[in-house]
Amino acid sequence: MPHIALPEDMPGITAGFAFCPDTAKPMRELAHILLHTSGTDGFSSRDRELIAAFVSSRNTCYFCQTSHGAAASHLNGGDQTLVEAVCRDYRTAPVSEKLCALLAIAEQVQIDGKRVTSQLVENARQSGATDFEIHDTVLIAAAFCMFNRYVDGLATVQPRNSEMYVEMGKRMAEKGYAAAPQPAP
Amino acid sequence: MPHIALPEDMPGITAGFAFCPDTAKPMRELAHILLHTSGTDGFSSRDRELIAAFVSSRNTCYFCQTSHGAAASHLNGGDQTLVEAVCRDYRTAPVSEKLCALLAIAEQVQIDGKRVTSQLVENARQSGATDFEIHDTVLIAAAFCMFNRYVDGLATVQPRNSEMYVEMGKRMAEKGYAAAPQPAP
Repeated sequence: MPHIALPEDMPGITAGFAFCPDTAKPMRELAHILLHTSGTDGFSSRDRELIAAFVSSRNTCYFCQTSHGAAASHLNGGDQTLVEAVCRDYRTAPVSEKLCALLAIAEQVQIDGKRVTSQLVENARQSGATDFEIHDTVLIAAAFCMFNRYVDGLATVQPRNSEMYVEMGKRMAEKGYAAAPQPAP
Repeated sequence: MPHIALPEDMPGITAGFAFCPDTAKPMRELAHILLHTSGTDGFSSRDRELIAAFVSSRNTCYFCQTSHGAAASHLNGGDQTLVEAVCRDYRTAPVSEKLCALLAIAEQVQIDGKRVTSQLVENARQSGATDFEIHDTVLIAAAFCMFNRYVDGLATVQPRNSEMYVEMGKRMAEKGYAAAPQPAP
């Protein structure tokens, strides 16, 4: 049961967003920029969602890991095995050298920003990452340390219903995060 | 030295904000709502800045701890001993029972949102905290887990210059966070 009187029947972060629309607005906007509109050929929305799911898995946040994992899978042609491989061990997952190097940075940010070493940044640059891509990786990982704590710290309802997450991930992948919160399907 | 080519002579988060104004906007807006405009008699900006400084101290983020500590001190009549006492051991610091209970929630969110227990929330409620105050406490603590990682993960310049932080804290306390980033004084 949630710690505070959140709207009923809304899963995860959507309940917090409905409880407090004022703070929801910038949080949604930040996610929209980082995950949806900043995607390029070199650092796609799929890869950004993979980093979000990976950091959420390290923070053991079921709602965020599953929903962003579903968004990444939708952007990967519906194939869920990639996000599973990344969360299990990104070093052996079938991702580009660059994404692997960015995941290594995200891995340290999840623990403490000070653990990002010059060597990790140099590895990312050697594999083709730009300063903007390194910046966005650090901020995606940092932002999910916020989103995950918000979702879990309020003890939101996080249904174990894989169909719901597949639908949610599809909607997130296609429409992004800037629209008004929607009730769970 | 910062990991990426941040604007020179800008300390801490101001360099990240100048590097990427698109993401700076919602991050500043979130801080402005949580720390500056949501303050009430029962949960003032001073208390919100104290929680921000406390969480930043647990994340050992020098820039955020010192700047938000300076903001809290400015809102406390210039007395720095309160924020020092809270960061040292909030349980023995001269704060209200309610703020002590909210700090206990923030303490757990900093580690993992799932560590917030029903008992901690009940303690806060017994000491007079509303659902909105509990919500904002969780989100302030979660948000500083983002801000701290952003500041440290980019290896921003964090000067050891106490006068600079006193000035910065005064400006933050008086004007909030919504304005355009300003160069360091």
